[in-house]
Amino acid sequence: KMAVALLQGSSRGLGLQFCKYILSKHRKAMVIATCRAPDTGNQLRKLKGDYPNRVTILKLDVTREDEIKDVADAVKEQFGKLDLLINSSAMLHPSGKGETSLRDVSAEGFAKTLATNAVGPLVMAKYFAPLLLKGSGMFGHQHSAVLVNMTAKVGSISDNALGGWYSYRLSKAALNMATKNLSIELGHGRKKVVCISLHPGTVDTDLSRPHHKNVPKDKLFTPEYSVQCLMSIVENISMDKTGSFFAWDGSELPW
Amino acid sequence: KMAVALLQGSSRGLGLQFCKYILSKHRKAMVIATCRAPDTGNQLRKLKGDYPNRVTILKLDVTREDEIKDVADAVKEQFGKLDLLINSSAMLHPSGKGETSLRDVSAEGFAKTLATNAVGPLVMAKYFAPLLLKGSGMFGHQHSAVLVNMTAKVGSISDNALGGWYSYRLSKAALNMATKNLSIELGHGRKKVVCISLHPGTVDTDLSRPHHKNVPKDKLFTPEYSVQCLMSIVENISMDKTGSFFAWDGSELPW
Ligand SMILES: NC(=O)c1ccc[n+]([C@@H]2O[C@H](COP(=O)([O-])OP(=O)(O)OC[C@H]3O[C@@H](n4cnc5c(N)ncnc54)[C@H](OP(=O)(O)O)[C@@H]3O)[C@@H](O)[C@H]2O)c1
Ligand SMILES: NC(=O)c1ccc[n+]([C@@H]2O[C@H](COP(=O)([O-])OP(=O)(O)OC[C@H]3O[C@@H](n4cnc5c(N)ncnc54)[C@H](OP(=O)(O)O)[C@@H]3O)[C@@H](O)[C@H]2O)c1
Repeated sequence: KMAVALLQGSSRGLGLQFCKYILSKHRKAMVIATCRAPDTGNQLRKLKGDYPNRVTILKLDVTREDEIKDVADAVKEQFGKLDLLINSSAMLHPSGKGETSLRDVSAEGFAKTLATNAVGPLVMAKYFAPLLLKGSGMFGHQHSAVLVNMTAKVGSISDNALGGWYSYRLSKAALNMATKNLSIELGHGRKKVVCISLHPGTVDTDLSRPHHKNVPKDKLFTPEYSVQCLMSIVENISMDKTGSFFAWDGSELPW
Repeated sequence: KMAVALLQGSSRGLGLQFCKYILSKHRKAMVIATCRAPDTGNQLRKLKGDYPNRVTILKLDVTREDEIKDVADAVKEQFGKLDLLINSSAMLHPSGKGETSLRDVSAEGFAKTLATNAVGPLVMAKYFAPLLLKGSGMFGHQHSAVLVNMTAKVGSISDNALGGWYSYRLSKAALNMATKNLSIELGHGRKKVVCISLHPGTVDTDLSRPHHKNVPKDKLFTPEYSVQCLMSIVENISMDKTGSFFAWDGSELPW
């Protein structure tokens, strides 16, 4: 049987690393890598060169419902199912920097952050739910598929002690609610799609770069290390864990 | 000393009832009632007739940052401070009905719900924080002011057992994070603005009307009863409770 994984937001950072991991560790898996600009020379093209028969690169801007629908139609046509969907795309804020105080908040900046970080991933779930329900549980066991929303520890309301980063924090709290809601809709009766939120740790990517100077060296992970930890959670997940929020080390985070 | 309260979203429902309560129970309070359409014959005009010197009606569509700024400027000019701000406006969904399943989800409907329920209240906080910091704590004691975000029990991620209502639930989870973040920024050092989320119970208003048939009669509150309960929480709140989420009966809700 063939495993099918879709990595949404995989031009760079963790999304790209999820593609690399799956291609090297799951030898029978097909990888659908989506990104906004498939024609620019991003690293996905190199990956496609290395694994020409296992990688499909498709254009998907997560803020565009029409593109999400088109990709879902293409995946349905080509594979008829999905075993794993990871929503990895996100932004801190259109300015590239999280708000340090209310003064930096704007309706426009917040709305754009929400469009990418919360609306897009939920609309992904809408169009891919039918394919996930047809999944054969190739990443794990006793479920049909796994849906992962990449959120963040700073999206935990209970854990919030520092404040700031309004747009990012609020968008990730909303996405955590999406995970919980999806776990209910896609996890009762015969429906067996495991839905989880994951926090990757602080990882050396473009997203976190402006904030690295405050991070102790041993707390700044490589994408390789973080993805290996996260995929071990995914590979061992079961239905009784659906609707939860895990950090890279497997510990459960509060909402 | 004069108390100043601003009720955002007070043309109907709980927002209107908060105005009535404050006018009748806090005899020295000035009420700034904001709504989208101050010139249509809504009940605020009648209230203005009853209390001509204590009611100021101002136009404020919470999705418009320019209107929020204008109202903040007007309040600054006229009163120089604010003791209480309640963000009451919200929608279930532009269609008037919460989504019962993913099929009902659309990017556009979700984005519009977020604009009203999450972006607007946060932008309110941005422009009114300076006035709340200058408040004289006239509703309560030992703080400068109280900021209330009306959220909802269905906005609790931990408490979510039924799913559905995607746009509304996700927007309220985001607004709960706003409350927590605001409590941190406006509650340290000399800053003493208490920020809380409140759940009013299931109240007989236009918002809940489409869903009344599932509510036992003794669980469906009048706006009068709900607002009386909520205002007793507000009138007794102290700084050590900032950043919390309360139901009408004073019980604390989990995030
Ligand atoms: N890195 C960390 O320390 C950290 C910590 C906590 C959580 N996270 C979460 O982990 C996930 C991955 O983050 P990362 O560190 O890999 O970030 P990253 O390196 O900045 O990559 C972000 C990715 O999102 C894509 N993207 C942005 N807007 C998009 C849109 N509208 N449509 C489609 N794709 C879009 C980008 O594509 P383009 O190349 O087209 O811009 C890029 O591939 C995010 O959800 C993030 O919030 C990261
Ligand atoms: N009723 C309940 O059972 C219940 C339960 C849980 C939580 N809540 C929360 O309690 C709060 C009050 O709800 P309610 O029952 O009083 O609702 P409601 O009777 O439907 O009133 C909603 C109010 O929001 C205003 N509004 C909508 N969009 C606006 C915008 N863009 N700008 C400014 N105002 C806008 C409406 O003004 P227009 O007249 O101009 O439309 C109206 O005054 C809401 O936050 C709601 O989520 C209510």
